[in-house]
This record gives sequence, C-alpha cells and structure tokens, in this order.
Amino acid sequence: MSAPKAVLFDIDGTLVDSNYLHVDAWHQAFQALGVDVPAWRIHRSIGQDAGELLTSLVGERDEEWIGRAKDLHSENYKTLAPRLRLLPEARQLLERLDAGGITVVLATSAPQEELDILLELIDSDTVIHATTNADDVDVAKPSPDIVQVALERAGVEPHEAVFVGDSEWDITAASSAGVRSFGVLTGGIAGDLLMQAGAERVFADASDFVERLGELGWTA
Amino acid sequence: MSAPKAVLFDIDGTLVDSNYLHVDAWHQAFQALGVDVPAWRIHRSIGQDAGELLTSLVGERDEEWIGRAKDLHSENYKTLAPRLRLLPEARQLLERLDAGGITVVLATSAPQEELDILLELIDSDTVIHATTNADDVDVAKPSPDIVQVALERAGVEPHEAVFVGDSEWDITAASSAGVRSFGVLTGGIAGDLLMQAGAERVFADASDFVERLGELGWTA
Repeated sequence: MSAPKAVLFDIDGTLVDSNYLHVDAWHQAFQALGVDVPAWRIHRSIGQDAGELLTSLVGERDEEWIGRAKDLHSENYKTLAPRLRLLPEARQLLERLDAGGITVVLATSAPQEELDILLELIDSDTVIHATTNADDVDVAKPSPDIVQVALERAGVEPHEAVFVGDSEWDITAASSAGVRSFGVLTGGIAGDLLMQAGAERVFADASDFVERLGELGWTA
Repeated sequence: MSAPKAVLFDIDGTLVDSNYLHVDAWHQAFQALGVDVPAWRIHRSIGQDAGELLTSLVGERDEEWIGRAKDLHSENYKTLAPRLRLLPEARQLLERLDAGGITVVLATSAPQEELDILLELIDSDTVIHATTNADDVDVAKPSPDIVQVALERAGVEPHEAVFVGDSEWDITAASSAGVRSFGVLTGGIAGDLLMQAGAERVFADASDFVERLGELGWTA
C-alpha cells in the first residue's frame, strides 16, 4: 500500500491517553445518578456519540436525565484532566507523516473545551493541517459524518486517506465513509475486535506505527 | 461436559466490578511517583502478581520504590472502594451452583483487608465453601499456586474442577494447575484473548453464565 495523501486521526485513546479517564468520568456520573453500569460496558461504549452511549448503557431516559448525565461526565472529566498524557511517540508520528508530505487531520467530535486541552498536550500545531470538533456535525461516530468533514478539510477523496483510531466506532465510521483504517490498542480495545470491525492493520500504539513507517513504504 | 465437583472463582473483575478501579489506583500511584504508564498497559497487567505487574510496567526498581508504589496503590484503592459493586447476578450464580451440589471456592490472592470488602459485597457466606487470600501463597497468578490451594480446600482433583476468571493470568494459572477454565468479559479483557490463553468458553458475565447453566447440563 503506497502512502496515502492524508491520514485522519482520532484523538481520544489514539493520540492522548484519555479513554480510561472517560470511563471513570461516566462511571462516577452514573453512580451519582443512582445507576450501576459495569465499567467494562462503559469502556466498550467509549468513542461513540454520547447520546448513543447513553441509550446503549442505560436505555431511554428523558431529556433532563440525559442532560444531567452529560453535565456530570463533563465536570468529572474536567477534574480528571490534569492526569491526561500524550501517548508514546504520538507527536513524533504526526511530525514524521507531515515531513513525508502526508496531510494530517485530527478528526474528533470532542467539544471545543475538551479539544483545547487535547491540542495543548499534542502541541503540534505546525504539522496539523486541520482539526474538526463537535460543532462540525450533529452526530458523532459511528456515523461517518466527522470522517467526511475531515476528508473535506484534507482536500482528498476517501480512497486517498487512511483513518487511525482506537475504537470499533472509529473503524465503523471510517468504513461507512469509504476510508480504510488502522487500529491502535491504546484505547484498551482488543486488536481482534478492531480487525473484526474492519481495520486493515493494528498497531500497539503510535510508537509501533512510527517503527513500521518504513515497512509500510510511507517514508522517503 | 458434565457438571464439575467444584467451581473455583476469581473475584476481582469476575464477581466484583473492581478492575477499572485497580487500573485507576495504579495509574494515580505511578503518576504520583513521576512515571507515566499508559492506562491500557496497566489494564492488561491487572490480575497478576503485583511484583510481576510492576516489573512488566516500569522495569526493575529498588525495594523502596516498589514498596511506595504498592502502598500508594493500596491507599488509592481504599479511597475508591465505596464505588465497588457486585457484578450482575454474581451472587445468583454462586447460589445456583451450590444448590446444584457444586462446591464453590473463591480463589484470590487479594490481601485480607481488600478481601473483607469484596466478601461483604458478595454477601454469600453460606454458599461459599472456602476462600483463599494473599497469605496462602508467596506468588500470585499467573503462578498456579493459588489454584492448587483452592483445589485442596475444595477437596477435588484438577480434572474435577472448573476455574472462572476474567484475565489471561487467571486462565494461565488454571491451565498450569491442570484445571480447565471459563472466561468472563467483565474485567474488560477481550474474549479472543481469553480463548487464546486457553479458556474453554467465554461468557459475557455471571448473568450470561446463569442463563447457560441448563445448556451446560449443570443444573438438575
């Protein structure tokens, strides 16, 4: 496979070690609302649209309950944010791709407030061509909408891009947009599940990805 | 497969929803000591002996550092303990097995202090034949030692028992003791990994296990 024109990256769990903090933030939110949801089920839902996450975990609820759950999650996550860290060699991966003439776009539907914290950690503004956020779409992954926005910002066709993500929702969103995808294990979702969802390859993390750039034929 | 004489249960992540709290307790401990370990790697190490967990995650360290890490983990875990919950139908599973004449033994190497909290949540003293703890062995899973102690307490031979656990370390420990094993997904480790480690079957959780008792031929 020759180098794509653009690589579209999920951020949460892919570039930044945030998934387990999101699990914790939702776990605390549900307990505060008197609902016990096993943590592994929350984990499996991370990365998809918050509305769909809530429906799959706690069933149908009224608007007020959903609003309170989302607010509690946001507050808890903000409290946990000082523990966020960039994943190993995430920055190097973006820099290497950019140096190789590949357009790097961050494709997330995180709210701008969360995104600001993530971008500060990634600290690679000069190599990031564009970034999406929650305002760009009505519904998040696994809907392909955010991938389509990222493709537009990259200025490429679906077959000219590769999406990189850590969750089944990322892989499904990419597939639905006609974009092939690579998985990473850093979100805590097993490689087999990512492959079953349609990932072409799975890397342990960005560091593993960097090591294999030569093997992929993506570097000069 | 006919009903075994005894079923040996791991507790953490199998009967009680504790794995993600252990991940959090270690994550905070490492950060307090100035070491960033990605959460997914901590998660994959949960369930094995703390000494081996530390070596695999942070390499060789002196005794003092190891002691501080373990103490910080214990303190953090104690703080998180009010958020521990029994997993769905865990108690019913133990009761159904006991009612079917199957000896139930809890096979853990948790320290007694942690175990007391777990047993209070499980609240099934009358159906639990015996329980192991950290004092019973020098080294925890994946060493088979704790499984062997559990077999002795159950008064059965390896081929007369089934071990139930949520981590690759559980499955490996059971295999090394000559005991077949079933996996559960409640610890957040994928079924494929549990099967690859040697699990004969994988259930989503205790509730799924209860539903399949008839199909297994384990109920009268």
